[in-house]
Amino acid sequence: MSDIRVLTGPQVAEHASRESCWIIVHGKVYDVTDFLDEHPGGSKIILKYAGKDATEAYEPIHPPDAITTNLPPQKHLGVIDASTVAKVVKEVTEEEKHRQALLDARPPLDNIINLHDFENVAKIVLPEKAWAYYSSASDDEITIRENRMAYQRVWWRPRILRDVSSVDWSTTILGQKSTLPVYISATALGKLGHPDGELCLTRAAANHGVIQMIATLASCSFDDIIDAAAPGQVFFLQLYVNRDREITRKYVQHAEKRGVKGLFITVDAPQLGRREKDMRMKHVDDDAGAEVQKGQDGVKKDQGVARAISSFIDPSLSWKDIPWFKSITKMPIILKGIGSAEDAVLAYEAGVQGIVLSNHGGRQLDTARSGIEVLVEVVTALRLRGYFPDPKFEIYVDGGVRRASDVLKAIALGAKAVGVGRPFLYAFCAYGQEGVEKAIQIFRDEFEMNMRLLGARTIDEVVPDMVDASSLKSHFVMTPQDNLFTNTYQPLALAQFRNAKL
Amino acid sequence: MSDIRVLTGPQVAEHASRESCWIIVHGKVYDVTDFLDEHPGGSKIILKYAGKDATEAYEPIHPPDAITTNLPPQKHLGVIDASTVAKVVKEVTEEEKHRQALLDARPPLDNIINLHDFENVAKIVLPEKAWAYYSSASDDEITIRENRMAYQRVWWRPRILRDVSSVDWSTTILGQKSTLPVYISATALGKLGHPDGELCLTRAAANHGVIQMIATLASCSFDDIIDAAAPGQVFFLQLYVNRDREITRKYVQHAEKRGVKGLFITVDAPQLGRREKDMRMKHVDDDAGAEVQKGQDGVKKDQGVARAISSFIDPSLSWKDIPWFKSITKMPIILKGIGSAEDAVLAYEAGVQGIVLSNHGGRQLDTARSGIEVLVEVVTALRLRGYFPDPKFEIYVDGGVRRASDVLKAIALGAKAVGVGRPFLYAFCAYGQEGVEKAIQIFRDEFEMNMRLLGARTIDEVVPDMVDASSLKSHFVMTPQDNLFTNTYQPLALAQFRNAKL
Amino acid sequence: MSDIRVLTGPQVAEHASRESCWIIVHGKVYDVTDFLDEHPGGSKIILKYAGKDATEAYEPIHPPDAITTNLPPQKHLGVIDASTVAKVVKEVTEEEKHRQALLDARPPLDNIINLHDFENVAKIVLPEKAWAYYSSASDDEITIRENRMAYQRVWWRPRILRDVSSVDWSTTILGQKSTLPVYISATALGKLGHPDGELCLTRAAANHGVIQMIATLASCSFDDIIDAAAPGQVFFLQLYVNRDREITRKYVQHAEKRGVKGLFITVDAPQLGRREKDMRMKHVDDDAGAEVQKGQDGVKKDQGVARAISSFIDPSLSWKDIPWFKSITKMPIILKGIGSAEDAVLAYEAGVQGIVLSNHGGRQLDTARSGIEVLVEVVTALRLRGYFPDPKFEIYVDGGVRRASDVLKAIALGAKAVGVGRPFLYAFCAYGQEGVEKAIQIFRDEFEMNMRLLGARTIDEVVPDMVDASSLKSHFVMTPQDNLFTNTYQPLALAQFRNAKL
Amino acid sequence: MSDIRVLTGPQVAEHASRESCWIIVHGKVYDVTDFLDEHPGGSKIILKYAGKDATEAYEPIHPPDAITTNLPPQKHLGVIDASTVAKVVKEVTEEEKHRQALLDARPPLDNIINLHDFENVAKIVLPEKAWAYYSSASDDEITIRENRMAYQRVWWRPRILRDVSSVDWSTTILGQKSTLPVYISATALGKLGHPDGELCLTRAAANHGVIQMIATLASCSFDDIIDAAAPGQVFFLQLYVNRDREITRKYVQHAEKRGVKGLFITVDAPQLGRREKDMRMKHVDDDAGAEVQKGQDGVKKDQGVARAISSFIDPSLSWKDIPWFKSITKMPIILKGIGSAEDAVLAYEAGVQGIVLSNHGGRQLDTARSGIEVLVEVVTALRLRGYFPDPKFEIYVDGGVRRASDVLKAIALGAKAVGVGRPFLYAFCAYGQEGVEKAIQIFRDEFEMNMRLLGARTIDEVVPDMVDASSLKSHFVMTPQDNLFTNTYQPLALAQFRNAKL
Repeated sequence: MSDIRVLTGPQVAEHASRESCWIIVHGKVYDVTDFLDEHPGGSKIILKYAGKDATEAYEPIHPPDAITTNLPPQKHLGVIDASTVAKVVKEVTEEEKHRQALLDARPPLDNIINLHDFENVAKIVLPEKAWAYYSSASDDEITIRENRMAYQRVWWRPRILRDVSSVDWSTTILGQKSTLPVYISATALGKLGHPDGELCLTRAAANHGVIQMIATLASCSFDDIIDAAAPGQVFFLQLYVNRDREITRKYVQHAEKRGVKGLFITVDAPQLGRREKDMRMKHVDDDAGAEVQKGQDGVKKDQGVARAISSFIDPSLSWKDIPWFKSITKMPIILKGIGSAEDAVLAYEAGVQGIVLSNHGGRQLDTARSGIEVLVEVVTALRLRGYFPDPKFEIYVDGGVRRASDVLKAIALGAKAVGVGRPFLYAFCAYGQEGVEKAIQIFRDEFEMNMRLLGARTIDEVVPDMVDASSLKSHFVMTPQDNLFTNTYQPLALAQFRNAKL
Repeated sequence: MSDIRVLTGPQVAEHASRESCWIIVHGKVYDVTDFLDEHPGGSKIILKYAGKDATEAYEPIHPPDAITTNLPPQKHLGVIDASTVAKVVKEVTEEEKHRQALLDARPPLDNIINLHDFENVAKIVLPEKAWAYYSSASDDEITIRENRMAYQRVWWRPRILRDVSSVDWSTTILGQKSTLPVYISATALGKLGHPDGELCLTRAAANHGVIQMIATLASCSFDDIIDAAAPGQVFFLQLYVNRDREITRKYVQHAEKRGVKGLFITVDAPQLGRREKDMRMKHVDDDAGAEVQKGQDGVKKDQGVARAISSFIDPSLSWKDIPWFKSITKMPIILKGIGSAEDAVLAYEAGVQGIVLSNHGGRQLDTARSGIEVLVEVVTALRLRGYFPDPKFEIYVDGGVRRASDVLKAIALGAKAVGVGRPFLYAFCAYGQEGVEKAIQIFRDEFEMNMRLLGARTIDEVVPDMVDASSLKSHFVMTPQDNLFTNTYQPLALAQFRNAKL
Repeated sequence: MSDIRVLTGPQVAEHASRESCWIIVHGKVYDVTDFLDEHPGGSKIILKYAGKDATEAYEPIHPPDAITTNLPPQKHLGVIDASTVAKVVKEVTEEEKHRQALLDARPPLDNIINLHDFENVAKIVLPEKAWAYYSSASDDEITIRENRMAYQRVWWRPRILRDVSSVDWSTTILGQKSTLPVYISATALGKLGHPDGELCLTRAAANHGVIQMIATLASCSFDDIIDAAAPGQVFFLQLYVNRDREITRKYVQHAEKRGVKGLFITVDAPQLGRREKDMRMKHVDDDAGAEVQKGQDGVKKDQGVARAISSFIDPSLSWKDIPWFKSITKMPIILKGIGSAEDAVLAYEAGVQGIVLSNHGGRQLDTARSGIEVLVEVVTALRLRGYFPDPKFEIYVDGGVRRASDVLKAIALGAKAVGVGRPFLYAFCAYGQEGVEKAIQIFRDEFEMNMRLLGARTIDEVVPDMVDASSLKSHFVMTPQDNLFTNTYQPLALAQFRNAKL
Repeated sequence: MSDIRVLTGPQVAEHASRESCWIIVHGKVYDVTDFLDEHPGGSKIILKYAGKDATEAYEPIHPPDAITTNLPPQKHLGVIDASTVAKVVKEVTEEEKHRQALLDARPPLDNIINLHDFENVAKIVLPEKAWAYYSSASDDEITIRENRMAYQRVWWRPRILRDVSSVDWSTTILGQKSTLPVYISATALGKLGHPDGELCLTRAAANHGVIQMIATLASCSFDDIIDAAAPGQVFFLQLYVNRDREITRKYVQHAEKRGVKGLFITVDAPQLGRREKDMRMKHVDDDAGAEVQKGQDGVKKDQGVARAISSFIDPSLSWKDIPWFKSITKMPIILKGIGSAEDAVLAYEAGVQGIVLSNHGGRQLDTARSGIEVLVEVVTALRLRGYFPDPKFEIYVDGGVRRASDVLKAIALGAKAVGVGRPFLYAFCAYGQEGVEKAIQIFRDEFEMNMRLLGARTIDEVVPDMVDASSLKSHFVMTPQDNLFTNTYQPLALAQFRNAKL
């Protein structure tokens, strides 16, 4: 249409100040002057790109439609004439060179034999800011670690002498076939860690019959992901509910139209947690700047990436909204982020199709209990009321899973499937799509071994009697050490070799 | 009045020996010859200033009226003619220069994102002696750490889908409004750590609507603090009861007259604890002196700052004294330092207005339980007798609090508010008044986040069902390690990068 | 017989490619071309020896009859004329020289005073691959360590003032006399660690009246071991059941004919566990090769030694097979690898003579419980049904035993004897037969001391009341550490010496 | 008398071989040729002194009458003419010089503020062999450390607002006055650590009204100790019962005649434990010698000091012997080393006057429970039978005590007093008699503080309600760590200073 104004690089470059600030994103020009003070990430980062193309910085940390959603139409100034924009010769920093060398020295994918390996590679090769954003959790990061530790409080009671020549760990999730009792849980901002972002997950999932849950805050747009799908590939959608419900309605109905098979509404994040690793990262950036501005930017200054991208989330979401969701979609509705038996009962009674017992990977309320611990209390409470088992109501767990063994423990205790987020994210950060496929392969190897050793031929044979979860509820905190005694005690030594130099 | 004798520097300088020892403090001259052997801090430190101005050493570690209280009037010799005293050119030591460099290198206040940060900065920038005095606790320092650890044994059971668009964590304490369910608890000798001492607290508290409890052993005098108050600013008073009850009576009635709103009588300190860090500091000083005097000074030698300043406290204080306190003041009376259900019941029956479940920040009886643990037993016992809840009897807890999350756990378990001492102290040691304001701001951010994530819109909605405190009573002490086994076991390794030098 | 073809070195050397691949093993020539892709250890390792003598590489990691079992008779080409094979001058690598120096520097055997010492010496002197194979366990190696830790949760209640001038710790196992309540449990591939392999065990066992259990996967052939036996020496046989039951039948009946006194059928290994230390070792080897082949060899690539040698094991083995075993042998049948009370009851009811409560030294299902923990539940369940005690049904335990004290705890809780595997293996890896004898001597010293100190004069007097096992079932996992607090806290120090340089 | 033969140095020097071996001890000459093979410490150490004066090596590790007891009279050859023995110029080794420098650098006694300080000084200044002998415990040294740890599982429930202006911690033990509820427990071979040996204890005990228990294996002879006593000073006697009861009878009756007030019969040591630190020390010595003799000396070789000195102890001692003890002495009889309620009941019924709940400082049966844990079960069992409280039957506890707080916990749980051994031993090793006096002073300071803070004015007011011992019975052993996870997790960091060099 002829209304679209075409602008040139020099024109844009004239608006490079706090007084008049234009930026280019994805070939379009926006006037963000009035938005500077509202930018959840602070004005400073925008001003860095005032009068210039900000796409590269914008892309990985914003939902694709963030700018169009936040800016009124009159601030959409037009398209840029690409030929008029000076090509920025991107300087390769020493840090970036070092990172490239690290990438080159990665262990060969064949040497990756467990999910921790991916995380360790990612930790080393990721840009610091990406690692901080992905790995961070709230407050003292107790819960993120407890999520892992809790599985160690559940012990196996394996059965023997069953013919396990063939074992089958496939299942269904919300009626959809899955080759694993695991789905890929939503994680945000995938492009911070890999240029293809969440598409790495999509492609790998297609090849292996695994279900991907698409994140509201994915770096790749929802449609890009769906467009990349294989025929018949199954997706779920993770939903952060917008303060503007109309946006949410459109988003959900669009997803349903494009074939998404389940709507996972996040209910544990009316506000995103304070994640100190992420927050410290922000400060390092600021510090690099000239002077330290004492509190000038107010609260927003120290909130890290997480807060910057989440201001649209509606803290008023409540049980009253459930009927509305039912009215706008026929997709099964699952509440993601249940942390108590009471809310599990309410969810069942609200008529949703499932719940995810989750603490958001430890990123929200610290010292919240792990999903696996909550599972026991939830199953007990539902069973008491005759709500469990019920084929129309499924329970999932996420957080801390690193082994097929963990998944099977959750299933033994009543879960239908388990969500795995960061491990798949780290897999593609470290090795792209191939990494994700290897992660799925590792799961397969581990499921085969564990089910044989458990004496379970199918997922249905993984039963409560196979676990001893009696220590699960106990939270052991060490009494502080008697340092004087400990430092005085001389530990026993082993027999010494005769040549200390060897 | 013409009775006041004016003395000159040379006159004072003549009395510089154990036989006749005069010192100048705050412009007045005192004959302390007879007091040398009674000085709780030992005679040596006084003799160092014999015939000289001792103000700078005296000030931070003595209550302002210590010298007038301890010396009979006839030893108050007169005022000094300042012009006659040689100005001491204070030499800046290497240690002091180093400390100044550390102060300059402090993290910018913006980078402080939790209360631990203040403590760490204080630990690095404080003079060693001040750090030793503030941070020390009794015996093996088990209880001071247990105070923190105990909160980790309480886990959240958060509720979801409640409209938390606005949350409010303000409350009342003894009927006084407080913007936080937290009061600034009394800590002593603030000038050891910052020249403005406790006034940093007073000014920050005024700006943020927080209540300050004034310590009997504050470096700033009671009146200096009250004089610095904003209109309507609320204070409580922490009281060490003097062997001479008349002194106590005057002190309490003066406080009431000046508007103090609650009297917190310390009941866990008939004698101050043996705090080894503080005691070792004392020895380092002595060692610097020429010869080591074997036991010459008797018990007093190795008692550190704490004992030196506390000899006036009355160990005979008992339940029989409560009616007397009621007779001398109309302020609400709170017993600070309750450690068992039995005493909580006695306190209620004695008709006081509240209790603080506290072990004095771990500085008194080591391996005493934490306030949060005692809280459960106290609430149970009071409830059993129909004493709880009772709007006229409030329960507070202190010790080990570093997160808003801790405060909310105490409230869920029945506390009305929580006392926070060292963190605010460290905040002003590190950054003065601004530090304290930042600490309050951090609390506010954390309260907002935690209440939203808990699903509690007001303090009243923070209820017992929101916590799992079932592990709170358990004191886990590790069975000693099998060192031979541990040293022989080779831990699993992650996949190796191909270039170890990277 | 004249049918045996004699081949020469040059003839064999012509078949050195993937297209035609001959190898020499123990003086015989085999055509393994068609077998290359089926080799559980991958084709690469065989191709390394294509056209050459592979005996040295073959020997330590294959059961002696592996090649004849796996290759059809027509691929057995004939015998080699030894004089025609070029002597390979084996180069002594730097690594091997270093290892030899370590061997020379071993602590004198007299200095070995506990079983951990053997393990530590073995860890240092063994080739890396051998150590990886022996020491590895599955997944996170939780269970292998838990096996040891569990004994620390059982505490003694010793009895005093009993005449213990003579104490006797001998017993019978399956009716056979044993000087210790311990048998040497089966471990595989002994020649990886010592040229004499399992014969070190056989000779030491003969000298000390201890029973050896022979492993299906021993490096020394079954007959070599039996041939080395002293008159009347007692053996048990550990059995991996072959997919081809005929092979198993012959093996078992041969063993019975040669006088074996008990058949221990392994029931916890339908598939061998994923042992990451072993798997990583495999990768190091591959990496040494030129290019990394991405996934070319499929799953088999990353399975380590363990999987390579175990593909014959039948995963379909089930309770239905027990009658068949009874029909082919009169030896007592023991099920090795029970992990729950339910299966212990089934075993009893199936009419076998005993069970070993075992998790395969932590090498199979990780986070399976320890034998000693399972023992309590098994004895309780059997007793409840009147199955315990029963002189015709014996219970053994293995895993984690390092002290006579551990053995006695198992006996107190109901075990008849205890299997000890790795410690004896490490003993001969470190010091050959003499090492094993010393290990037995250490057990004897410890049994004497412990029984005296317990007040038990015979094994029968080691009774349940002598132990407090009330903590055995509890699995304590530390709540994650509050790192900020821990790093800020300054531990108490001891009094300092005056000269730091001393 | 003229029968005494006087021998000269050259005469003795002629007998310096295995064939004829004479040695001089305390001025007397002995023919030990036939005794060489019976010497519990091995023949080698004696042969080192063959034909020479062995007094210096003999003295600290033998009971004074060891040689006369073990050699028949005809081997007592006569006295030496001192003038004829070449003075051995003792070479001061580098090690000894270093040790002397360490002694000179000891912290001044004033800087010692807790009992751990003594242990740390002793650890540094003692000859290695002495430290190994004193500090060692049996097997994995679990129990010695558990002894200390167990006290941390008992927590205080202090009482407030009691008039504690004067507190009194004196008591009686077996009817004898003691200024502390603590007695000095027997430890052996004091001269290994200080030339005055146990006399340091005797003199300090006299000055402070504390009771000393004399050890059978003291370096100072029983009579030397009694001779050094102050008028009215009270002693107890620790008794190892000799295989030759006549020796025991004489020893006991002599002690009674010399005024000893209580006979503590050790019942937990029919054989001394295997103490690996001590055993390793022995090996270091051997290794220094030329060739390693494989097993030549048999079992005795690797037994350390402990076994060398204890071969006379009778392992047949039993309940049947108690009436005999009653028949030979009127002293109260106490059984030292009870570890279960059953034996406590038997002891009471056997009519003895008391028991010591003890595991011999962790030196006997490893993973035996601590005295403080056993105390709870013993008091419960005795109370059930109406045996407790009984003024004629006292219960003591020892092991792991380092603080007055520990003592008071034991008293709260039912102990009459507590035995303290190693801390007093280390005190005199580090500082002689003065060290012991300082240790007592530290106890006094701690008792005063603790009793005030507990709200107990006398020992009788230290009651069960003052402790929470509910975790005492729980033995927490950590589930093995998930190393992959732990190594991948990146701990939270504090805010960074801007100049890392500071």
